[in-house]
Amino acid sequence: MRLVSAQDFDLRREVEYGSAEQNEAVRTIVKAVKEEGNAALLRYTERFDSMKLDAAALRVTQEELKAAYALVEPSFVAAISAAAENIRHFHTKQKRNSWMDLQPDGSLLGQIIRPLKRVGVYVPGGKAAYPSSVLMNVIPAQVAGVSEIVMVTPPATGGKAGIDPYILVAAAEAGVHEIYRVGGAQAIAALAYGTETIEPVDKICGPGNIYVALAKREVYGAVDIDSIAGPSEIAVLADDSANPAYVAADLLSQAEHDEMASAILVTPSEMFAKACQAEVARQLAELPRKDIASASIEQYGAIILVNSIEEGIQVINRLAPEHFELIVKEPMGYLGLVENAGAIFLGPYSSEPVGDYYAGPNHIIPTNGTARFSSPVDVDDFIKKSSLIYYSKEALLENGATIIELARREGLEGHARAVEIRLRQEGKAGGNDGNE
Amino acid sequence: MRLVSAQDFDLRREVEYGSAEQNEAVRTIVKAVKEEGNAALLRYTERFDSMKLDAAALRVTQEELKAAYALVEPSFVAAISAAAENIRHFHTKQKRNSWMDLQPDGSLLGQIIRPLKRVGVYVPGGKAAYPSSVLMNVIPAQVAGVSEIVMVTPPATGGKAGIDPYILVAAAEAGVHEIYRVGGAQAIAALAYGTETIEPVDKICGPGNIYVALAKREVYGAVDIDSIAGPSEIAVLADDSANPAYVAADLLSQAEHDEMASAILVTPSEMFAKACQAEVARQLAELPRKDIASASIEQYGAIILVNSIEEGIQVINRLAPEHFELIVKEPMGYLGLVENAGAIFLGPYSSEPVGDYYAGPNHIIPTNGTARFSSPVDVDDFIKKSSLIYYSKEALLENGATIIELARREGLEGHARAVEIRLRQEGKAGGNDGNE
Repeated sequence: MRLVSAQDFDLRREVEYGSAEQNEAVRTIVKAVKEEGNAALLRYTERFDSMKLDAAALRVTQEELKAAYALVEPSFVAAISAAAENIRHFHTKQKRNSWMDLQPDGSLLGQIIRPLKRVGVYVPGGKAAYPSSVLMNVIPAQVAGVSEIVMVTPPATGGKAGIDPYILVAAAEAGVHEIYRVGGAQAIAALAYGTETIEPVDKICGPGNIYVALAKREVYGAVDIDSIAGPSEIAVLADDSANPAYVAADLLSQAEHDEMASAILVTPSEMFAKACQAEVARQLAELPRKDIASASIEQYGAIILVNSIEEGIQVINRLAPEHFELIVKEPMGYLGLVENAGAIFLGPYSSEPVGDYYAGPNHIIPTNGTARFSSPVDVDDFIKKSSLIYYSKEALLENGATIIELARREGLEGHARAVEIRLRQEGKAGGNDGNE
Repeated sequence: MRLVSAQDFDLRREVEYGSAEQNEAVRTIVKAVKEEGNAALLRYTERFDSMKLDAAALRVTQEELKAAYALVEPSFVAAISAAAENIRHFHTKQKRNSWMDLQPDGSLLGQIIRPLKRVGVYVPGGKAAYPSSVLMNVIPAQVAGVSEIVMVTPPATGGKAGIDPYILVAAAEAGVHEIYRVGGAQAIAALAYGTETIEPVDKICGPGNIYVALAKREVYGAVDIDSIAGPSEIAVLADDSANPAYVAADLLSQAEHDEMASAILVTPSEMFAKACQAEVARQLAELPRKDIASASIEQYGAIILVNSIEEGIQVINRLAPEHFELIVKEPMGYLGLVENAGAIFLGPYSSEPVGDYYAGPNHIIPTNGTARFSSPVDVDDFIKKSSLIYYSKEALLENGATIIELARREGLEGHARAVEIRLRQEGKAGGNDGNE
């Protein structure tokens, strides 16, 4: 793991958004499903997933969901259920109420908060099928009050027909019962535009391969989509009160995700930097996913030496990492200085996997420096707001002339007249007419 | 204004997102400003705005801001200042606090709410320069706590050199003092990547022409952007308790915006429909912008007859209009049925211009049916959230084995070991090792 200067290091990576051919293929698929419905959906499922289904077989049955429980360990059911409870507890604290502001003139202004009506969650097949991601997408939507949550996932996993039972159990534990065995761009199109079998949704979320990502971008506008995640990243700021073995393990837990993942250590202690370097090398050698983790550490890993913890925090603010572990004496004392970080883990026991799986906050967090302006997935991602304006007669008579002046200033006479006609009729002409 | 059936009517319009040539031109401009900074910015300003500036002249001076006040009516200053106060009052109610959830095991989870640091607001030149839009973009950012708000606007307006003094006064009244005389795609690129004179921002908002819209899309990811607004729209649901002249005036106030604007009346009363139809024709004939309004009414206007107010609300929910006026007896009684509408105006005195200019809620509202899943601009658009996880030793010892189980289930051994190494060292091995 190389030592670099803070000035030389930039966490941003150029992320590939698909070739012209991939874009073209996705547009063709989306158009076909939009126009032909089930016929195209089933045709692409046969072509890409080697699965010949009829429309009646698209939906996973309640019997299949129940059967999945027999295929997983009871300890897994207990673990996923405990995680779901923590995630639900945390996200429930994010819930907001509609509010009203009553004015002394009898007017009423407000903001109405409502859940989206129907949300689609994409769950990838194969090795990228993570039960924890099912919870992290579904539970915030449920807490927001979304009444219909539907899941789509490819009809085969890891080369075998059938959906991963761990995914089915996670869905059932989270409370999702409408699941369709379709994947890829065709599944995204079906969620966006609907087919004879699948009702269209208002928002699509969840990770997927490049075809899924391009299809989400293609249908955006017809429906809302979540943001498209880049490779995962961690930055640890530690002083020599930290345990180098813990820090190295945390860095590697990020590096094992993906060759493009990034693991950064920032420290004011050269001794600690060296100890961590050695620990990373030692632990890396024994890691099952050592090829991936080595490539990540090699290309996107770094140790940055700084003069103080404060300077370290400036580096963190510039990186705006997805995950930030602050393992120093008195970490709370520095929290106010942290401006940009998706999730902040404080102290020696808050290892990143605590947040990835279990503590409660969401593990879908902005990557690639976007924590400067965006936020982890939460209940707000599944609500919509409406402004409410009830103006009293008194308020209109009192303020009508001012509104008319502003409208005329912008050359919008029709706006002015909409107010003026009321002022006249209610017995008080306002502003100059503009009509004569 | 034609009568149509609810089934036949769809508010959605195909909005043009730029030709291949426009996209290519924008990419060239953005790249040049990113690479060359001021040199490119000044070159394009000379080319597109016929204005030869040097870098020192880019920023509007405090003297110019003060001088603008002498060029506008005192009544305008009073009006814009009163509007600003109302908008600030309303948006202040949207502010949220960071929160913590203290757990009995000593852990602490939370959500930290912070303002974006620096925001750029684009203000178009010429006839599209609306002082009210300055307030609607700037004030929510200020209320969120954004410490640096910068405005850019083309160096000429309506064919004349110099920035519209009404825009400058609106900016000054809102409290913006960092203003640059640059516009177009080159201004967006300068905000996104910075130049020698203009510091880069975290988010760009504000309306603009097609080049501005394409440039915002081009820089998205490096910075956040607001959503790109479609043509404006109103839907009015009225029964025969409403005044047809008021309703017609409100419909026309929307239609005068733009030939693609849409004005819809939904009513259970055929008599009221006919009275409105006649009023629209009568008022339209006298409207200064009658050519625009006629085209809008002709193409995108409609009167939809329904059997009941409840059925009318179903139509509204399907349309998901930007502005929705509900002018019936006891409008509050129907509010709970309204699912999709960006801003809801209740009763006879809540004419849409009340909200466009003055009452307090934002006038930047989702268009083209997107109120199904998105919301008016508000303070939330200018904050970012970080999750906070402080896990106690007790919490990790208690829950570590469950976390390890979930990590191993997903094949992420490095995640499992990051927890396991702590359990071992702190005196309690958890889970099965997987290492031996």
